[in-house]
Amino acid sequence: MTEKKEIKVGLIGFGTVGSGLAEVLYAQNQRLSRKTGADIILAKVADTRIEALPEKFSAVELVRDADLIINDPAIDIVVELIGGIEPAKTFILKAIANGKHVVTANKALVSQHGMEIFEAAAAKNVEVGFEASVGGGIPVIKSLKEGLVANKILSIMGIMNGTANFILNKMTAHGTPFAEVLKEAQAKGYAEADPTYDVEGIDTAHKLVILMTMAYGMKMSLNDVSIEGISQIDPIDIDFAHEFGYKIKLLAISNNHGDTVEARVHPTMVPEKHMLANVNGAYNGFLFTGDMVEDVLLYGYGAGKMQTGSAVAADVVDISRNIINNCINRVPCLSYLPDEIKPRAITPMANLRCPYYFRISALDKPGVLSTIAGILAKHNISIESVLQKGRSKKAGTVPVVITTYEAQESAVQLALAEIDAKDFCSAKTVKIRIMVDHDEN
Amino acid sequence: MTEKKEIKVGLIGFGTVGSGLAEVLYAQNQRLSRKTGADIILAKVADTRIEALPEKFSAVELVRDADLIINDPAIDIVVELIGGIEPAKTFILKAIANGKHVVTANKALVSQHGMEIFEAAAAKNVEVGFEASVGGGIPVIKSLKEGLVANKILSIMGIMNGTANFILNKMTAHGTPFAEVLKEAQAKGYAEADPTYDVEGIDTAHKLVILMTMAYGMKMSLNDVSIEGISQIDPIDIDFAHEFGYKIKLLAISNNHGDTVEARVHPTMVPEKHMLANVNGAYNGFLFTGDMVEDVLLYGYGAGKMQTGSAVAADVVDISRNIINNCINRVPCLSYLPDEIKPRAITPMANLRCPYYFRISALDKPGVLSTIAGILAKHNISIESVLQKGRSKKAGTVPVVITTYEAQESAVQLALAEIDAKDFCSAKTVKIRIMVDHDEN
Repeated sequence: MTEKKEIKVGLIGFGTVGSGLAEVLYAQNQRLSRKTGADIILAKVADTRIEALPEKFSAVELVRDADLIINDPAIDIVVELIGGIEPAKTFILKAIANGKHVVTANKALVSQHGMEIFEAAAAKNVEVGFEASVGGGIPVIKSLKEGLVANKILSIMGIMNGTANFILNKMTAHGTPFAEVLKEAQAKGYAEADPTYDVEGIDTAHKLVILMTMAYGMKMSLNDVSIEGISQIDPIDIDFAHEFGYKIKLLAISNNHGDTVEARVHPTMVPEKHMLANVNGAYNGFLFTGDMVEDVLLYGYGAGKMQTGSAVAADVVDISRNIINNCINRVPCLSYLPDEIKPRAITPMANLRCPYYFRISALDKPGVLSTIAGILAKHNISIESVLQKGRSKKAGTVPVVITTYEAQESAVQLALAEIDAKDFCSAKTVKIRIMVDHDEN
Repeated sequence: MTEKKEIKVGLIGFGTVGSGLAEVLYAQNQRLSRKTGADIILAKVADTRIEALPEKFSAVELVRDADLIINDPAIDIVVELIGGIEPAKTFILKAIANGKHVVTANKALVSQHGMEIFEAAAAKNVEVGFEASVGGGIPVIKSLKEGLVANKILSIMGIMNGTANFILNKMTAHGTPFAEVLKEAQAKGYAEADPTYDVEGIDTAHKLVILMTMAYGMKMSLNDVSIEGISQIDPIDIDFAHEFGYKIKLLAISNNHGDTVEARVHPTMVPEKHMLANVNGAYNGFLFTGDMVEDVLLYGYGAGKMQTGSAVAADVVDISRNIINNCINRVPCLSYLPDEIKPRAITPMANLRCPYYFRISALDKPGVLSTIAGILAKHNISIESVLQKGRSKKAGTVPVVITTYEAQESAVQLALAEIDAKDFCSAKTVKIRIMVDHDEN
């Protein structure tokens, strides 16, 4: 090994994750030195909202202006933990232009402007670490880039947002409607005041974009992802799911079809025995299928102050090792070499094939089921099971619940439009896609 | 990045895993080149038992004598996949002496002679990769060494042997006795002719030793591990476990108490909702608890030709990157720098504290339960629940099943010796430790 060296870290943003990183680097300083031979120290923090750093960080300089970190020749690694697109993006690009390595947990930024940042970093031969942008402290990105390096990734599937999973879980455990659980989660600080990103699947889609880019070596953007959130999920669907042996989870899914790759986020019925069905509370689960390794699942808290701090610190250590050993960009940022990152076609949602769950709100009249069955048959959709029981609160309306064998999304859309136009239909049909557990096939 | 380079791999042993590695390197050659900029090729195979390599490997030279690889100046990385202690150890030490990097999947060798090998490698400044020795294709070792680098590891818990898990699963699903399931597993090739390593917990202990060494930066040996296998598990215990809400799993467990660390392998009652309880069939699950990251679980096949080949290939790629970038031993073999690996005390089993399950085979006489309760109370063991129902096949004998609150192992041993000595006891009491799910605390 090389001689002992000092690595100086500058941190922009002393919020939850920022202070978490400071705590991790403080608590683990001796351990990291025993592992790397280097003294990795937090030298400077930039934050406009705080007056002083906690006392244990008395050796750390607090500045208001991020430029005092970005332009400081003593700083080796700039860590951006303010989140959002601007000024984070400007800070990162300036740091790269100054020849500094960058670590960020900013999934919105990486998923939307990652290419610009990675290309700038490649041009300056500096590193960009973003392990903390996906799955909190779970080493998702390192596992995908390095552990599964010798695999064609056939599929990515995951529960990537703890808030949405927490809400679905509460709805499942207590039958409480979405709006009520959300209010409770907000009161307890588990959900943001504006929960759109979490519950409408956007945050999940950010993470899927990051993982797909690396898994397939492709350029893509958030617009390529088909996104449905959980705000339309009703406890009655959770109950029916249970009767069929499923749990409803908000999944990010990308199956690799070779010529095209899927990019979708939506509520999904997951077989109760599947590992992802057992990812509860605010936990995340990431399931990668490789052509050599088959299924590998990674599980843990997908957020949290110290967890995310742990992932940021892992990136800082990785880059420190590369600085010490003079091997910058030993592993390419996006797994594939920059020249090997290519655009790739996204599978149109219309082409998707999977089993479906429908909950049709039908007036309780004779002939309704035969009409529904007829429409589905016409569109080549085979019914696997039908469940019709009880009456909903609306007088005269019964939920007709149908699960299908594998069917094509385009056919499903046509069939449901036809069913919903019938006068026996009192509300739009609820459609939830069902996961095929290939272990059982 | 550096210029395109060729890395030459020499493989000793073309058995299941060896041919798997050859397949992986063949199938992934282009992909690995797009990720590393290098051409990683299998140049030579040594195997005494085969006449020729499959046709697709016509560019690979087959030799009988491993020395023709070990002494070949063109070979960069020697992969040992023959298993067992000798001649594997001699081959590896000779390769290291010749300045070659080594990759192995040999858990018996690494867990028992790892220190000698790692010290030799450090002295010659070559690398030793052993990802494939634990958890097949799951990136367990990389996650522990790099992903969780900024954590004090508080606990390791895992299902680390697929054969034992497969057998327990079959016993659970069908109530079939151990011996019968084992015979079936052997017939199907899921278990070895001599199943001792798998079912008696020795293979699991090998893996625990490897993980503990890296997690805590300690020197230890197989003798430090307290090992109990699953051959004594009766389907009746699996049934009772289910009534109490547990599944029985063969777990490797190491809790870090700071001054001492636990090292134990034994059947354990795992709460049914715990992720490890849902690791079924031949799958493995590894749960690490870090002081920063809390729980991280890794799950997948723990064995298999292509899976293990994938892990070996990941090590080959890691080392290739270090060769290309001239940064050998960028990450220390054992996570901590060689000088920081120290001996550390193992927690004596007598000091262990956990809840227990007892199945006492008692003659159906008045006063038995009060005698048992009295003995347990005398030893400070608090009963949580008692279950006594039905009669076993032996006339007059009933199983008295007791679960306890947290108790000390030494007290449990004394109490059970006292109970088993009573004349109402018709067989040795079965004792199974219960996992505490700290998420529920």
